[in-house]
Amino acid sequence: MTGLTLPLIREAHARIRDKINRTPVLTSETLAGQAGGALFFKCENFQKVGAFKARGATNAVFLLSDAEAQKGVATHSSGNHAAALARAAKLRGIPAHIVMPTNVPKAKEASVRRYGGQITFCEPTLAARESATARVMAETGAQLVHPYNDLRVMAGQGTAALELLEDVPDLDLILCPVGGGGLLSGTATAAKNLKPGIRIVAVEPAGADDAYRSFRAGRIVPGATANTIADGLRGALGDKTFAEIERYVDDIVTVSEPAIVQAMRALWEVMKIVVEPSAAVAYAAVVERKLDVAGKRVGIILTGGNLDLNDLPWMNSQVL
Amino acid sequence: MTGLTLPLIREAHARIRDKINRTPVLTSETLAGQAGGALFFKCENFQKVGAFKARGATNAVFLLSDAEAQKGVATHSSGNHAAALARAAKLRGIPAHIVMPTNVPKAKEASVRRYGGQITFCEPTLAARESATARVMAETGAQLVHPYNDLRVMAGQGTAALELLEDVPDLDLILCPVGGGGLLSGTATAAKNLKPGIRIVAVEPAGADDAYRSFRAGRIVPGATANTIADGLRGALGDKTFAEIERYVDDIVTVSEPAIVQAMRALWEVMKIVVEPSAAVAYAAVVERKLDVAGKRVGIILTGGNLDLNDLPWMNSQVL
Repeated sequence: MTGLTLPLIREAHARIRDKINRTPVLTSETLAGQAGGALFFKCENFQKVGAFKARGATNAVFLLSDAEAQKGVATHSSGNHAAALARAAKLRGIPAHIVMPTNVPKAKEASVRRYGGQITFCEPTLAARESATARVMAETGAQLVHPYNDLRVMAGQGTAALELLEDVPDLDLILCPVGGGGLLSGTATAAKNLKPGIRIVAVEPAGADDAYRSFRAGRIVPGATANTIADGLRGALGDKTFAEIERYVDDIVTVSEPAIVQAMRALWEVMKIVVEPSAAVAYAAVVERKLDVAGKRVGIILTGGNLDLNDLPWMNSQVL
Repeated sequence: MTGLTLPLIREAHARIRDKINRTPVLTSETLAGQAGGALFFKCENFQKVGAFKARGATNAVFLLSDAEAQKGVATHSSGNHAAALARAAKLRGIPAHIVMPTNVPKAKEASVRRYGGQITFCEPTLAARESATARVMAETGAQLVHPYNDLRVMAGQGTAALELLEDVPDLDLILCPVGGGGLLSGTATAAKNLKPGIRIVAVEPAGADDAYRSFRAGRIVPGATANTIADGLRGALGDKTFAEIERYVDDIVTVSEPAIVQAMRALWEVMKIVVEPSAAVAYAAVVERKLDVAGKRVGIILTGGNLDLNDLPWMNSQVL
């Protein structure tokens, strides 16, 4: 038994809790009324670095021995995990080496640099990324912290559900987005072990439905080219995340692009909070009526709030 | 002595507290670091109807005798006060008559209708608005609830500062935007009577600086045509609000349009909250370094979060 466990998640929480935000759980009478059920939004958009990724990266960095730590950490990511790893490394006073494609948006590069991350650019191909990462690790001795397929990271991400169930113990259901499965595996492992009767439903964009198809096939099915505005959910499942998803997740549903945009806009307009498209995916399942929440108490994890405010999806006529 | 007092504000709070949200006070290490002082944001964008106006309107409606109440309330407003009055009237089960110009944005009309407000349209002139309001009041017996120049409304608005100082008692300074002066007179009266040593600084867009000029002249100076993105702050002072402002406010500073937009965008990007332009005006004084906050503990009232998400100021090249 080498998988993720509730004790690992509890230990992660004790390790990181003074290094992250205890994010609030917000409600909206308007959105609850529309849904016909009670909705409890866990606001990881208010997390450090603006996303739940701060949890897993911080846990991984602070689990290192001093000997390991002094050589630093490395990852290939252009998203929230890169910023989260850079921040965690800075907190520990060690280097973070981030491999990014040359076409990365300037805002994401700036976010990593703000936390002192050392960036290595590579061509925007999988092969170039892997060889650049291997080279950086060989040169520095830095340890890889994968964005999701890593038990330390998965345990850290599970701490959001731990807090959610502390604040709202009597949930019937948790909705969680799935990309690579780090948040989902942590959430499902935490929630099912704390409360075996709870339902865990993952939500995935229909335009990047590899987890949905893998879940049904009982094996990891490679994704086709992802086609979704929810850029945080384009990753494929890993073997470690998929094992916990098979064990604990009750169902995976998919949502359309218009539903994601509609859900995101409703969160902004009604709740007055900024969430990125990926963060609206779980609530989009409620908007699109992909499952029955009538009379239920539903936890919804809002994963992050980082996006380019110059490029909002409701201004893009292609999406709607 | 017929002005606003702390007991009136305390009574207002007892009257409305179960009918409004206790809004959170949020902080940001990033924004505090940039400012060089500790910033405490009172988030009235999370208030009912999305703005602090819910406080004053609710207080006014629930102060009516049953005989007065059954005839309803009336106002001329196309903004947050109209929605707030409609909601408060609905809570009490009485009619709200709202006079609006024919060119009001559809979203504002919809917001009033959502709460059951009865709309009377008039031509978009001051004369037409006043005659339409007088006619509605004569026909229905409804009582006018002015958006700000009304002690009941001013007392209600003062409850935000009451809560802010309950949550963060040791503030050195409160920054508050000023338009008609309802929020400012309530804030200043509450804060100075609770904590005589506190400084109250009002902030006004330079493009609608009638309060700034009135404060310096010692009498109400009529405004020129307001020219600011902060549409909630275009109103002129009233005699009741100005009396308290003269008594309690330490200073009024003005901010530029680019500073308002920059402040608004920083609140969205860093704090992940949706605020309307008027709500960013007080923080804009920090951004534009219009006063010294170094080492100080500063309360900042964020007034509301209602705006058209299709029309954001950083997309408007005229503004920046």
